Amino acid sequence: MSTTTESPMRNGVDTATLFATLDAVKASPEIAKFQFRATNRWVNGTHNRSTIHGFYGAGQELAHRQQATFDADHPEVLVGADNAPTPVEFLLHALAACLTSGLANIAAVRGVELTSVESTVEGDINLLGILGLSDEVRNGYEQIRISFRLEGDDPDKLRGLVEQSRLRSAVYDVLTNGVPVSIEVEA
Amino acid sequence: MSTTTESPMRNGVDTATLFATLDAVKASPEIAKFQFRATNRWVNGTHNRSTIHGFYGAGQELAHRQQATFDADHPEVLVGADNAPTPVEFLLHALAACLTSGLANIAAVRGVELTSVESTVEGDINLLGILGLSDEVRNGYEQIRISFRLEGDDPDKLRGLVEQSRLRSAVYDVLTNGVPVSIEVEA
Repeated sequence: MSTTTESPMRNGVDTATLFATLDAVKASPEIAKFQFRATNRWVNGTHNRSTIHGFYGAGQELAHRQQATFDADHPEVLVGADNAPTPVEFLLHALAACLTSGLANIAAVRGVELTSVESTVEGDINLLGILGLSDEVRNGYEQIRISFRLEGDDPDKLRGLVEQSRLRSAVYDVLTNGVPVSIEVEA
Repeated sequence: MSTTTESPMRNGVDTATLFATLDAVKASPEIAKFQFRATNRWVNGTHNRSTIHGFYGAGQELAHRQQATFDADHPEVLVGADNAPTPVEFLLHALAACLTSGLANIAAVRGVELTSVESTVEGDINLLGILGLSDEVRNGYEQIRISFRLEGDDPDKLRGLVEQSRLRSAVYDVLTNGVPVSIEVEA
């Protein structure tokens, strides 16, 4: 006879650590205050580069295991050199990534099996806004759509993951509700 | 004696092409309708990967010169494997990149000399929201701050670049005003 102990890993999520983290935050809500950061440096024309490394959280200065750099540029049709995706495309990556990370966590907590998650994000933007050619067209996206294709457990359970992830997504919240942004200049 | 012809390149921006693009859009406003896209695939746990390549604009299907992929993950303190920055950090990159691309274009159009542009972005987020531990804390950033350090021309002219870039930034608009996001699920 053998005894099977359920693994705390589910869908690649360490649920034991997840529940321990929740308990730690309940005991000390102050550790939930995080600050994320990026620095950016202009390269040339519309081409620039951001670096992401350190952040604050759990009451201390922390850093990612690796420093990451991301370029951005405009494509040639928008008078750039197309060295990298545009700034607005990174918003689409952020949205898909946040909802996907969230639903994987939620699946693990709920014991829902997940074998595949794919999504496509589209953002419609009318450049009359940023080109200053119309006062009636906004500068940013007019609409963003994301469509998920999930495989694994019962379809209703899978749909429930996306709904719960939406309700707790940081990026979905920022994109749909907006956030105060302050700008300082030293020149 | 020699005659100097002013180059259409300024700060790495091809101003001749920029003005030609503006004229083309004025003549055919339909070509200003763009759609940007990303696809995302879950890897494991909170780790996933987006691909950015094709987009629609100027009345046709287009693609970046190179396909780009970007990972996202949670750090270990947030029960991830820290394979990449978090989704919310890509919002900070997008904001800095959009404002920086814009001000380089505006500098070129205004004939303002720019020798260095650096910025630091910080986003404050209280994770009690996404952890579902408080109904009074939002899921997303509570505040984003970006500080620019510019070198080149007269300081007032440099500050004016940032202000005009803010007024015409797609990412600043989306982050401060929000955008409708629709979600579909196929399961």
